[in-house]
Amino acid sequence: MNNDSSSRIAARLQEWIAGAPPGSRLPSTRSLVAEYQASPVTVQKALQALTAHGLIESRPGVGTFVRAARTARPSDYGWQTAALGSPKTPPRSASTTMRSTTNDAIAFHSGYPDRDLLPERLVRAALARASRSDAALSRPPAAGLPEMQSWFAHELAASTPAGATPPAPSDVVVLPGSQSGLSSIFRALVGHGQPLLIESPTYWGAILAAGHAGVRVVPVPSGTDGPDPEELARAFEESGARTFYAQPNYANPTGAQWPARRREQVLDVVRANGAFLVEDDWAHDFGISTASEPIAARDDSGHVIYLRSLTKSVSPAIRVAAVIARGPARERILAERAAESMYVSGLLQAAALDVVTQPGWQTHLRGLRHQLQSRRDLLVTSLRELAPQAHIDRVPKGGLNLWARLPDGTDLEQLTRTCEDAGVIIAAGTEWFPAEPEGPFIRLTYAGPNPGAFREGARILGRALRGASR
Amino acid sequence: MNNDSSSRIAARLQEWIAGAPPGSRLPSTRSLVAEYQASPVTVQKALQALTAHGLIESRPGVGTFVRAARTARPSDYGWQTAALGSPKTPPRSASTTMRSTTNDAIAFHSGYPDRDLLPERLVRAALARASRSDAALSRPPAAGLPEMQSWFAHELAASTPAGATPPAPSDVVVLPGSQSGLSSIFRALVGHGQPLLIESPTYWGAILAAGHAGVRVVPVPSGTDGPDPEELARAFEESGARTFYAQPNYANPTGAQWPARRREQVLDVVRANGAFLVEDDWAHDFGISTASEPIAARDDSGHVIYLRSLTKSVSPAIRVAAVIARGPARERILAERAAESMYVSGLLQAAALDVVTQPGWQTHLRGLRHQLQSRRDLLVTSLRELAPQAHIDRVPKGGLNLWARLPDGTDLEQLTRTCEDAGVIIAAGTEWFPAEPEGPFIRLTYAGPNPGAFREGARILGRALRGASR
Repeated sequence: MNNDSSSRIAARLQEWIAGAPPGSRLPSTRSLVAEYQASPVTVQKALQALTAHGLIESRPGVGTFVRAARTARPSDYGWQTAALGSPKTPPRSASTTMRSTTNDAIAFHSGYPDRDLLPERLVRAALARASRSDAALSRPPAAGLPEMQSWFAHELAASTPAGATPPAPSDVVVLPGSQSGLSSIFRALVGHGQPLLIESPTYWGAILAAGHAGVRVVPVPSGTDGPDPEELARAFEESGARTFYAQPNYANPTGAQWPARRREQVLDVVRANGAFLVEDDWAHDFGISTASEPIAARDDSGHVIYLRSLTKSVSPAIRVAAVIARGPARERILAERAAESMYVSGLLQAAALDVVTQPGWQTHLRGLRHQLQSRRDLLVTSLRELAPQAHIDRVPKGGLNLWARLPDGTDLEQLTRTCEDAGVIIAAGTEWFPAEPEGPFIRLTYAGPNPGAFREGARILGRALRGASR
Repeated sequence: MNNDSSSRIAARLQEWIAGAPPGSRLPSTRSLVAEYQASPVTVQKALQALTAHGLIESRPGVGTFVRAARTARPSDYGWQTAALGSPKTPPRSASTTMRSTTNDAIAFHSGYPDRDLLPERLVRAALARASRSDAALSRPPAAGLPEMQSWFAHELAASTPAGATPPAPSDVVVLPGSQSGLSSIFRALVGHGQPLLIESPTYWGAILAAGHAGVRVVPVPSGTDGPDPEELARAFEESGARTFYAQPNYANPTGAQWPARRREQVLDVVRANGAFLVEDDWAHDFGISTASEPIAARDDSGHVIYLRSLTKSVSPAIRVAAVIARGPARERILAERAAESMYVSGLLQAAALDVVTQPGWQTHLRGLRHQLQSRRDLLVTSLRELAPQAHIDRVPKGGLNLWARLPDGTDLEQLTRTCEDAGVIIAAGTEWFPAEPEGPFIRLTYAGPNPGAFREGARILGRALRGASR
């Protein structure tokens, strides 16, 4: 199949269509084959492209026709305003981190690792195998493919200390991405109008999910060593909350990894309050100088709800994550998931499992660690030299981001605009605060495309910061 | 790669593992290759299977080891009972239609078409192509791949009458299955504690999604011609609802296709009440003697929220559906989806689009129509002859199911048990009623496996019904 010649045929046909009245019949495939001296497959591909663009339509057994262009008249949907009322959640604009940009921009904003950091060969091979397997045509159980459940359970079990009961495969619920998990956990365990403690700053997607679940968000300040246990205890007491959402390893955005002692203290506070800790281990595969150490591994009393995703490390197309929870909480979450979407594509589960059980996966993770390390170091060095006003409190031991505090009084909106005009996309820290930000911050990813441009990006940021200071 | 020999090696290794102390090192891959006279790929496959089952673990660069079996102690999750409180939604047990059964059962219960009815060749080829494409490693926009949006918009536009403005690609939000769409629509358009009108009987998944969304369900009786417009108008007025959920084409479970006049009347009532009609066109590809005629095609005023899924007709592994909505309602739904799961796997979207734009897809749909017709007719004939107590009010013109009323006083629970003991799985009609059922009904699918056993299934059902009558 020749892509170029099918595009060429499509382009020629498009010219022809532009001059033809709606409803005109296209020449038959056979005559197009003769006319363009191309294979039937190539002609078919050109016709498919035109169909997808809505220019032609085929009536099976009759022929292919130029679609009728319809004239639109202005619409009035004003009546919907009354039917819908005010939104229950104040609309948050789409996160900067989800923006797609042009190839020549220096992209410090993205939430997803660059394609160079993905295990492309493993992913393609796994998908090809899955497409030939039973998983391509069947429906897995609501809680997930048993082998996938096992894999998630065993990964966490591997770091369970002696004396604690490791999680069982039946404690696992496979999810179509961890965002869906957050939504379901907040709905299932907290519920409409009820309080939820949440680190501040923290992942904007968790703040968004909490808002849409209609829970009442109560921020708990969290620094480079995690939240202060006494502050956390006070927040539980004052709010009556029974759930605390946190990222103890390589927190997004700060990169903080809680020290072992702090992990124990927080778990103690959670237990003392008869509460749940929702541990979002989003960067499990992105350790650099340390490895992620899940608190969930130390808890067999059902207090920790553990969330682990493969989407960012395997491929954004393979949306597979898992929640590991014990006791009635797990049943509550599973019921929520079943009502929400019945089951997770078995094809994606089979492909994800294939990738992470290949020997090449461990090799990939080792290479990834080195790449993240040199990217992180390059960005930190560049910033220190060229944008010293962006203060990095602590260089993160893992994750994908740097969190930089800017001089007091920096106008973030103006700064991001100035940078963007100069071709550098940055994310204002505002998105990561559930309430008012504590100061002007920006988040910069070192996992974006083209690290060769990091220095240039830092230079532009530094210049913009000098301009922004008064 | 030889599956049999890898299973054989796995089985032998499993015996060895059973006798080995935890932590024992397995022989190297090279020595296993020599010992079993198999290829390295086959040995690797056996090791992967054992890893997936949690029997061994490999430490990269060190070797493969027998996993330590951990002793479990009984757990007490009683504290969760207080933290969780009563469920906000009365737990509904998992639907009968989602049950997997053994191969030799006569399965009249399933909600999914048998594998024989799926376009297997198209699906496998599409997935293989998608695994080689850019979609395997990239992230599509939140509203969906533009080409997939176009396809859904054009399909509906094709039945838009002259004078009405057809939907635009930008009116489409691609979904990971229509169940997710239902949940999001109910949360976005109705909201917690607010009333939602819903056909009765109707799809159990919609009842479930409504329950979990926390909306207040108000049933509207619906028969073989759809709901009575006056009754619907009264329900709007009495409840203050602004949304009505219905399946105007081949309703699940009744199979009803509303006559053209009724469709107009319902749309008028909806418009007069400044309300939304959520039109679930679940069986769009399953027309038999008629085609599905979406009400949404006749509405350009933003009153109809149109839901269309490809999961059931393409493959349960390719979970792709779409909602088509106009105006602020569409923005509200998109925001809900973005908070819920960010985006739909681009790989699944690319594969779905590939399948439905192949010429073979139309051929498949034609063949499917004939298969559904002969399966439906066979089941109807068998029931009339062998289980005449199961009364079918009207033979459906499309869809996958027969809806049969049983003699008054039939004990449905006993009936399903008796049938199951004799190897026939049926679904009690109770699941399709949002409130108390109007009588004893069962739903029987003619799209299940092995139509050769339909007569036998009908005979067993007839016998059980004779036993159940008093």
